[in-house]
Amino acid sequence: MTDIDGPRLLEDLHRLRQFGAHGHGVVRPTFSEQDIASRHWIAEQMEAAGLSATLDAAGNVFGRSPNAGPTLILGSHSDTQPEGGWLDGAMGVMYGLEVARALLADPATAHLSVDVASWSDEEGTYRSCLGATSFVDGLSDADLDTSNGDGESVRSALARAGLADAPAVRFEPDRHVGHLEAHIEQGPYLEERDQLIGVVTSIVGIRSIDVVFVGEQNHAGTTPMVRRKDAARAMFEFGVEINRRLAETASPTSVWTIGHVSVEPGAQSIVPGRASITVQFRDADDAVLDAMQAEVEAVVVAMDAAGLVAVSSTAIDKIVPTHMDEHLRSALRTAAERRAPGRWAEMPSAAGHDAMVLSHHLPCAMLFIPSIDGVSHDFAEDSHPDDIVLGCQALADAVIDLLATPSSS
Amino acid sequence: MTDIDGPRLLEDLHRLRQFGAHGHGVVRPTFSEQDIASRHWIAEQMEAAGLSATLDAAGNVFGRSPNAGPTLILGSHSDTQPEGGWLDGAMGVMYGLEVARALLADPATAHLSVDVASWSDEEGTYRSCLGATSFVDGLSDADLDTSNGDGESVRSALARAGLADAPAVRFEPDRHVGHLEAHIEQGPYLEERDQLIGVVTSIVGIRSIDVVFVGEQNHAGTTPMVRRKDAARAMFEFGVEINRRLAETASPTSVWTIGHVSVEPGAQSIVPGRASITVQFRDADDAVLDAMQAEVEAVVVAMDAAGLVAVSSTAIDKIVPTHMDEHLRSALRTAAERRAPGRWAEMPSAAGHDAMVLSHHLPCAMLFIPSIDGVSHDFAEDSHPDDIVLGCQALADAVIDLLATPSSS
Repeated sequence: MTDIDGPRLLEDLHRLRQFGAHGHGVVRPTFSEQDIASRHWIAEQMEAAGLSATLDAAGNVFGRSPNAGPTLILGSHSDTQPEGGWLDGAMGVMYGLEVARALLADPATAHLSVDVASWSDEEGTYRSCLGATSFVDGLSDADLDTSNGDGESVRSALARAGLADAPAVRFEPDRHVGHLEAHIEQGPYLEERDQLIGVVTSIVGIRSIDVVFVGEQNHAGTTPMVRRKDAARAMFEFGVEINRRLAETASPTSVWTIGHVSVEPGAQSIVPGRASITVQFRDADDAVLDAMQAEVEAVVVAMDAAGLVAVSSTAIDKIVPTHMDEHLRSALRTAAERRAPGRWAEMPSAAGHDAMVLSHHLPCAMLFIPSIDGVSHDFAEDSHPDDIVLGCQALADAVIDLLATPSSS
Repeated sequence: MTDIDGPRLLEDLHRLRQFGAHGHGVVRPTFSEQDIASRHWIAEQMEAAGLSATLDAAGNVFGRSPNAGPTLILGSHSDTQPEGGWLDGAMGVMYGLEVARALLADPATAHLSVDVASWSDEEGTYRSCLGATSFVDGLSDADLDTSNGDGESVRSALARAGLADAPAVRFEPDRHVGHLEAHIEQGPYLEERDQLIGVVTSIVGIRSIDVVFVGEQNHAGTTPMVRRKDAARAMFEFGVEINRRLAETASPTSVWTIGHVSVEPGAQSIVPGRASITVQFRDADDAVLDAMQAEVEAVVVAMDAAGLVAVSSTAIDKIVPTHMDEHLRSALRTAAERRAPGRWAEMPSAAGHDAMVLSHHLPCAMLFIPSIDGVSHDFAEDSHPDDIVLGCQALADAVIDLLATPSSS
């Protein structure tokens, strides 16, 4: 197996980190000045590695291998959250660069074809998974008209970046046989179990349900307790009951969150007439999501039937679980066991990734490395250097395995 | 006993209603164009009734009796909430006008001295109980600099109303022996008991406590349930627990409200790191308020000690209960029993009134009449005409009783 160059990988990661460095973290949201500069730098590194690099019509950086034949794409995203960590998706992009470079430099693997991608705007500064969507589906006018928080459209941002007339790099069904993405875990699962590599089974599905409580707005002094139809009181009871019931219904890896809460009119001297919350829940298994949704709706119906406060719900979002390709997963498992014997695990991804978009068109799989203390989307985000290097080596092994061995799928 | 003129009283109330009429309700916030016009109209009616009327330096309309001797003030407020009812405080002002007019016109009572007041801004468009404060304490620069929601100061509003150089009408200890205020109940207590008059024992005290929950803001996907320190979850549990425990501690007439709720950052995909609420509670008995406050603080301490989420509290407001004068109350009881035998009750006022300010300087008492369905501070507010007339007659009786009979207090 070809060895990747660990120190070189870490050096590249630290160079990329300089674009938008902010203390220990990075501020490099999509199409910011720092993000555009970093994309040109990534393209230069790809060219130096022997790939043919393009900044395309969606802001993707795409490094095409000079080789023909079955091609794996190694990709992730180099944009960050408004207050982001230095690894996040950037690590997966640098893994791709390092693996492609190492394979092209080794006579034993120089014939293998690996394309490398930094997909634009996975984090959704403008439109979540913009670049991956462009690659497999193309962009609609609606996509190009989507604006960031400052009111700038994708179209304007691309023109500002000098990409108004850039070609779009598109998926080639006859060339691309799969997409592998390495990423930090962003949670504490691997670290808590003292494991070094995670092989992702699926990306969790997400459902969001708005629940609205309509009572009666009243004077907080003159309205006796027995006459009240207090929307906030109903909301408090709902929140406690939902947390109790979902804990019984959920799988061990399910999560649920009431992150949005609003009470109206919101004055201390007025009995609230209206309250609303959003219940979001995630699981890798659609059947578990169905059961959780049924619990939420059952509590809504029961509380509404009690009659004091009208309670209603609307399912507002539904992302189905994305299952990773078994053939690609198998190669990652083999590589993980070789490089971290007994210290790797199969696990779902609780966060969304470009694979949610790409997997509709080509086989996808993901490799995780441990996040220190499970922290992500935060300046404090970090991983151990040894873990970073180990993950990249495992990815390289899996790529060689997949491209050098006739596929069984 | 002198009879008041019921139809004349109702006609005056309906005339006053035209200033800012909005469907069934009234929009006449303090120092609005309609409010200023209504004050001039009220002053004209006072003059016609034989009083000497002044619009004073605080916007009060004050009608001074031509008589000397012990003087009762009959006052309330004619300003409204942004979306107000037609009676609210306006009824008490028209009661004062009608009682003074009826007494001056009756040779048997023409010597009795009744001053009539419409105290400005009881509702706090600029500064709650502005006019009553001016009458007993005078206004500070801070009072005059207080602004309404549109950023206009009291000083500017008074100048706009042509009152920049108006004299301030002040409390005369040698003249004024008490203040009687009639008001709609604003709650359902009298109506539910089929009673026609309420004699107010005290105005409830109000305490407000801010409770803050500080947990840990996290990714709503990658943070396992067992690792979460969810501030909103703690808040839901606190809300339910407080409602359960205050129900055990409170008196039958206590009320408590969580009207202000905030959850941060408030996004459906982020585990809330911070939440805050305001718990407000009211009772006529300071000991009950002490017990309720102790319960709130005990739940705060217990939940904070549990350690998952930091919980702290700050007492932000405290209005002590205002007790009505027993001598004045006694006259109201006698009058109520004469005009509504067996169909009146002593009761606390759950809403604030000018008496909270005035009672620090002169004896105060209040008379309530029933509010239909307990509705107030709402366009739908209303009372039965017969109840309106009956209450005014009882007030007149009490005034005669107090002024014609040597005081025992």
